[in-house]
Amino acid sequence: MPTLKPLSPVPNHIIKRCVDLAFAEDLGRAGDITTAGIISEGTTSKANIVARQPGIIAGMEVARVAFASANKNICFNIHIDDGEPVASGDIIGEVSGCTAGILIAERTALNFLGHLSGIATLTSKFVDAIKGTNAQICCTRKTTPGLRALEKFAVRAGGGMNHRFGLDDAVLIKDNHIAAAGGIKPALLAAKSSIGHMVKIEIEVDRLDQLEEALELGVDVVMLDNMAPDILRKAVRIIAGCALSEASGGVNLNSVKAIADSGVDMISVGAITHSAATLDLGLDFN
Amino acid sequence: MPTLKPLSPVPNHIIKRCVDLAFAEDLGRAGDITTAGIISEGTTSKANIVARQPGIIAGMEVARVAFASANKNICFNIHIDDGEPVASGDIIGEVSGCTAGILIAERTALNFLGHLSGIATLTSKFVDAIKGTNAQICCTRKTTPGLRALEKFAVRAGGGMNHRFGLDDAVLIKDNHIAAAGGIKPALLAAKSSIGHMVKIEIEVDRLDQLEEALELGVDVVMLDNMAPDILRKAVRIIAGCALSEASGGVNLNSVKAIADSGVDMISVGAITHSAATLDLGLDFN
Amino acid sequence: MPTLKPLSPVPNHIIKRCVDLAFAEDLGRAGDITTAGIISEGTTSKANIVARQPGIIAGMEVARVAFASANKNICFNIHIDDGEPVASGDIIGEVSGCTAGILIAERTALNFLGHLSGIATLTSKFVDAIKGTNAQICCTRKTTPGLRALEKFAVRAGGGMNHRFGLDDAVLIKDNHIAAAGGIKPALLAAKSSIGHMVKIEIEVDRLDQLEEALELGVDVVMLDNMAPDILRKAVRIIAGCALSEASGGVNLNSVKAIADSGVDMISVGAITHSAATLDLGLDFN
Amino acid sequence: MPTLKPLSPVPNHIIKRCVDLAFAEDLGRAGDITTAGIISEGTTSKANIVARQPGIIAGMEVARVAFASANKNICFNIHIDDGEPVASGDIIGEVSGCTAGILIAERTALNFLGHLSGIATLTSKFVDAIKGTNAQICCTRKTTPGLRALEKFAVRAGGGMNHRFGLDDAVLIKDNHIAAAGGIKPALLAAKSSIGHMVKIEIEVDRLDQLEEALELGVDVVMLDNMAPDILRKAVRIIAGCALSEASGGVNLNSVKAIADSGVDMISVGAITHSAATLDLGLDFN
Amino acid sequence: MPTLKPLSPVPNHIIKRCVDLAFAEDLGRAGDITTAGIISEGTTSKANIVARQPGIIAGMEVARVAFASANKNICFNIHIDDGEPVASGDIIGEVSGCTAGILIAERTALNFLGHLSGIATLTSKFVDAIKGTNAQICCTRKTTPGLRALEKFAVRAGGGMNHRFGLDDAVLIKDNHIAAAGGIKPALLAAKSSIGHMVKIEIEVDRLDQLEEALELGVDVVMLDNMAPDILRKAVRIIAGCALSEASGGVNLNSVKAIADSGVDMISVGAITHSAATLDLGLDFN
Amino acid sequence: MPTLKPLSPVPNHIIKRCVDLAFAEDLGRAGDITTAGIISEGTTSKANIVARQPGIIAGMEVARVAFASANKNICFNIHIDDGEPVASGDIIGEVSGCTAGILIAERTALNFLGHLSGIATLTSKFVDAIKGTNAQICCTRKTTPGLRALEKFAVRAGGGMNHRFGLDDAVLIKDNHIAAAGGIKPALLAAKSSIGHMVKIEIEVDRLDQLEEALELGVDVVMLDNMAPDILRKAVRIIAGCALSEASGGVNLNSVKAIADSGVDMISVGAITHSAATLDLGLDFN
Repeated sequence: MPTLKPLSPVPNHIIKRCVDLAFAEDLGRAGDITTAGIISEGTTSKANIVARQPGIIAGMEVARVAFASANKNICFNIHIDDGEPVASGDIIGEVSGCTAGILIAERTALNFLGHLSGIATLTSKFVDAIKGTNAQICCTRKTTPGLRALEKFAVRAGGGMNHRFGLDDAVLIKDNHIAAAGGIKPALLAAKSSIGHMVKIEIEVDRLDQLEEALELGVDVVMLDNMAPDILRKAVRIIAGCALSEASGGVNLNSVKAIADSGVDMISVGAITHSAATLDLGLDFN
Repeated sequence: MPTLKPLSPVPNHIIKRCVDLAFAEDLGRAGDITTAGIISEGTTSKANIVARQPGIIAGMEVARVAFASANKNICFNIHIDDGEPVASGDIIGEVSGCTAGILIAERTALNFLGHLSGIATLTSKFVDAIKGTNAQICCTRKTTPGLRALEKFAVRAGGGMNHRFGLDDAVLIKDNHIAAAGGIKPALLAAKSSIGHMVKIEIEVDRLDQLEEALELGVDVVMLDNMAPDILRKAVRIIAGCALSEASGGVNLNSVKAIADSGVDMISVGAITHSAATLDLGLDFN
Repeated sequence: MPTLKPLSPVPNHIIKRCVDLAFAEDLGRAGDITTAGIISEGTTSKANIVARQPGIIAGMEVARVAFASANKNICFNIHIDDGEPVASGDIIGEVSGCTAGILIAERTALNFLGHLSGIATLTSKFVDAIKGTNAQICCTRKTTPGLRALEKFAVRAGGGMNHRFGLDDAVLIKDNHIAAAGGIKPALLAAKSSIGHMVKIEIEVDRLDQLEEALELGVDVVMLDNMAPDILRKAVRIIAGCALSEASGGVNLNSVKAIADSGVDMISVGAITHSAATLDLGLDFN
Repeated sequence: MPTLKPLSPVPNHIIKRCVDLAFAEDLGRAGDITTAGIISEGTTSKANIVARQPGIIAGMEVARVAFASANKNICFNIHIDDGEPVASGDIIGEVSGCTAGILIAERTALNFLGHLSGIATLTSKFVDAIKGTNAQICCTRKTTPGLRALEKFAVRAGGGMNHRFGLDDAVLIKDNHIAAAGGIKPALLAAKSSIGHMVKIEIEVDRLDQLEEALELGVDVVMLDNMAPDILRKAVRIIAGCALSEASGGVNLNSVKAIADSGVDMISVGAITHSAATLDLGLDFN
Repeated sequence: MPTLKPLSPVPNHIIKRCVDLAFAEDLGRAGDITTAGIISEGTTSKANIVARQPGIIAGMEVARVAFASANKNICFNIHIDDGEPVASGDIIGEVSGCTAGILIAERTALNFLGHLSGIATLTSKFVDAIKGTNAQICCTRKTTPGLRALEKFAVRAGGGMNHRFGLDDAVLIKDNHIAAAGGIKPALLAAKSSIGHMVKIEIEVDRLDQLEEALELGVDVVMLDNMAPDILRKAVRIIAGCALSEASGGVNLNSVKAIADSGVDMISVGAITHSAATLDLGLDFN
Repeated sequence: MPTLKPLSPVPNHIIKRCVDLAFAEDLGRAGDITTAGIISEGTTSKANIVARQPGIIAGMEVARVAFASANKNICFNIHIDDGEPVASGDIIGEVSGCTAGILIAERTALNFLGHLSGIATLTSKFVDAIKGTNAQICCTRKTTPGLRALEKFAVRAGGGMNHRFGLDDAVLIKDNHIAAAGGIKPALLAAKSSIGHMVKIEIEVDRLDQLEEALELGVDVVMLDNMAPDILRKAVRIIAGCALSEASGGVNLNSVKAIADSGVDMISVGAITHSAATLDLGLDFN
């Protein structure tokens, strides 16, 4: 079993922006009026973040920032690192300090942790499903608006790879671009002549003849869109290592193994970010 | 069958903030380098937003703002209003104008539309499952950070009701508050003495004896947490219309009907916001 | 005499936003050029914040954040808590540390403290004026733009209650809504069918016949607009505890006692937020 | 009687920032739920902004932006320009268009207009009180946090002059600076050597001997702090036109004329910004 | 001579953010007090933006947004597109409309235009200096903080290519990374195993033996740091098309031709963004 | 030789805003992927910031904030204060702590330091060039958008003076204002009647007859635009100390001494902010 890849962290300013936004929408103008009316100042507590179902954890640093934002003196001890598996009942982390602060941050922290761990967990299911093949699972731009950097991190935590982060860091020529340019060749040539030398180019092809045209001109990655496993296999043979191959379209936990067996390098799955259920986590006061 | 309730719109500044954030994270520093290199300036297109599976639509105004943000002159014609059902293949809306602008906004618009329609669709399934009862489905604070107002709107579009929007607009006394206050009575009294006259109070109870204590002191809503349908039925009888009753905990599409049959007024379901899969939508160029 | 209600604090991010804005507009692009040119680096001082007239204090936490924003190492000792009375000459708090930082934050801190204490002080005058009655003083949405959360806090510090914080956290049906809807009944029914179960409804009535129509349909609070004390008394009798009653319109320190004697539950006073004079405070260097 | 000075407008981005902030705090997350539930889409209205007491108007542009922010198609006709007087009952402006938009913006627009017109009105009372003298009324930095630029505009609308806008655009050497520097001379020399050639210098003096020391070194403005009218008169004679003179401290509508008669050039009044009551305005639907 | 590459535009939200910031720092709290006091409302003018020295233009869209921000009705006609050359005296663009608006935006528009055109002009000098070779000029991350996207655009306008936009869109392994990792091999392997398939890898080498080690492992681009032309020539021969070569370090207008003649693919020049003098432009009123 | 003037610091919030913006554009969505993949967590380093050419340093506080933003525990020891000269090879400051944090902040810190020190250095060259005269060098509003406050600070660090910071803190009547007003007299009178008593007025004159007209009406500063040294000398004689004189237009290191010898008080130079090359600085790991 390969060791987990090092997890490139999300930039601090993005975590902070996401947490600030979450608090602003949860605290509104009057703050936590329930806690303010009931919990005496100076009360302190300990509580555990507990997994209520098995999965892969992602978002501990976001949770830490959330509790710290509510009250600077809340201690947050991480028991399970991002990318590690948990069983139902496992204690993921422990918070201690100002009770009011813990209650104020509870939902915000859990919303992030549950959402990101849900993505990591679903990603890891796809990764597990293709174990033994050479393929890797990667994400798409089908992410929840405002949370892309965090969700792409969760994909990494789940053992997946990241596709491009936006429209600006890599070229992906799709069917509409090809149609507008009048074919694969003019599209590829136009793209190549307009970008810098640090930018990769991927092109989407639907048929094997398109593939050959693309390979002739040279391209870093070929997206094989909605092809059946046997067609994928042929495509991989045609590519012959001259580009990376990426299968895409209609991938699910039932179909992914057959796709991976075709020999493609990457399998991109929108569902891991746009349709992952939350991982059920709770905060239990001691 | 009751007519759909009027949909209170999301404030403009929230839609704008969400769309701006989504564009910033998708366009990065260099913008859509694929489109810029390939699509000639002045090219125009028409495209349809099409449902690839049945569901309930939510987020058309967000999509409209997304396309308008990419290019002021893109026309956006809404075929299906928020809250309306679609079948697979239905055209939801139509965009026309600057091709580059349409391509730039495509993923952002679809990410919002798919996410919100997914929530509306899942909500409507819960609503449908309890048709014929007096209960209503409502949401929780278990929402995706940064998108709460939009997601609560999607719940309304799916026929659900909104629970409180944050920690500040209603009191919800939970187990930890009760424990910290030393019981239901001191917790309720403390809360009542600290809030304004326009704020409702809900209290969570786990057992029927707690319920009676709460009702004696007077409360607007009682959350009946994790109670089996027969216990819920007893609770509803005890409440006898003196407060609204809200069932909560472990609600899913299998269990919801039996819960509703107990006679409770509200059933809160975290899953409709934290675990809804996206509704599959696509943009087809004509 | 009842003990002061616990003061629900203003969310940190709102205080920070208000203080940041105040510093930005006071420091401009070049900062405190007087202090920079004259006060040697490393100079430290002690200074007292002193009341120059009697009143009720509100805003100490805002002042603390202001001094801390100017220089992290300034100590701020609170002598008088928010909600407590001061006599002329009383020391409210004490700052010590970097002289330049104290001078830079002085005006910002005093502007907040004076403004909020002015509101708390005027509120307490209304509260004192109706002592012995069952009525409570509450605020309105007639607040200074940008400072609503802080001003509503100051009202609480002065012994008043908070009305709704915005257009979104409670329903208040006014004359124009009634006119547009074609009467009290259609307006109330429309409102009821469109909101969640955690939202209270108040309706404004000008005449006693309107009141009876509203009560029949059920409503949480009735605003009795611009009614003379004897009419108010009749209204209270008609309401008979089936809703909270709120007197509104033309309330001042001369008229408020007679209004309270009518038996209403709440008296809303715009003047406490929109027309309170500052409380005169100064910073005296030792 | 001199003609009103041209009113330098507040920069657009400041008006926009203030209005955006006001809407954000009023609309919260759910928007105007009363109006959304009751007012049918497409309904239009006309309404007048009416003065309910006499005064000087300020803030019409802010009101215009507020209504336009709620709905782009609301027409706003200005009947009374900023700086002009109104009698009770006068129509100040007229709005027409989308009823929901008008209702949503009503309180925000009136809060700004009432607050700023209140400042303009109080300023004009001070200006009127010293008519026939050579003195002018000016404001201070004792403004409501976040609204300084708007409040300074309102002072101009009321016929007053603006003192410096912040700590950065002019030097004002106060008692604490003098004490820290070890005297008037070292303070003035330090300040002069550290600032640019486009920056004016004012120094605060409490006694006539300080005044002479300051004048010897040369200074643009002398603040005569808390001096009785006869001392002010002596000070003006000593200054003899070599600097502008500004009386400050304890100025009210009773004392201001005697102060002005002393011959000072400027009289600064904190009350016009920190203690002006709102001007009573209303929105009457036709 | 090759045709100019299509210029990928800077995302709108970046232009808007830059222009808003520029206006905020120029208008401050009181706006353009000179223009407000002197120019009568309603006055209109025409003015030309004129080159006072030859160069390449960049930033016309930024200038357009600047004038439009000052006043919506100012017309801006572009005579010279971004990327085109101008001679001294050439009219670049023409503004007409509200005189006050033109005066307010003049400096902001010219500051952007002059700065970006200065970069484009200096870039084009480097590009011209290596005409006839196969090398291309590219930029670095040595840009003015806050303006990177605009400056990278200006480089494109001047005929240069863009290196990576930030630390996140491509890997560049430098000497310190190599030292920390314990050599080229461990550094490259670590980098390769942690990134997605759409990310390019460049490694900096100082000596030819390092180069061979890097090529064995496979890498997209090799940065040849501070090598003399004859060493570069050897390096290019060793690379033999297996990677792109980028010369870097100590490049100036005197040295660049010899570097290009070595056969490298790219030459990165920090000076084109960090040391370009402004292009002298003026606004002449008709 | 006069001692260096005390350097009025840039307000903290401006430094923070500039650094935040720089990090956001450098770290993007994925952060420093090179460092994350290669540098082990917990690794620490020491590194020196070293001058690679002689100059004047400015921006050390900005650099300190940059490193602290990347990692709170990075120590930053300043060896050379802002405003002090360095020789090639001098160590300016020393950073120690988290290696990843140092690498992440390196470019941002150096970009600020190099840019601001470049301005300070060029300014000091102009200051040195006129040593022995009574003139002072001052800056203009021709600054890099977004960085004005920092660049004006760098000018002070280089021994220069600051002209106005924006359109709002001083009046500068230019040729277009004079033309629009119908002459110097109406322009000056209009300006004088519209501004506060803390605002200085400068007027631009092209000819000596204009100068006399301006002086008659009284003005704080006269800008002598594009006049030859002998005309400047005449102008200085005419002014005779009744206003400050400022020479402007076409000033360079060759022409500045002759201009200063004319006896003018100030010489404004756009080039020191808009055309200063960066000061070459590097970060050397120990």
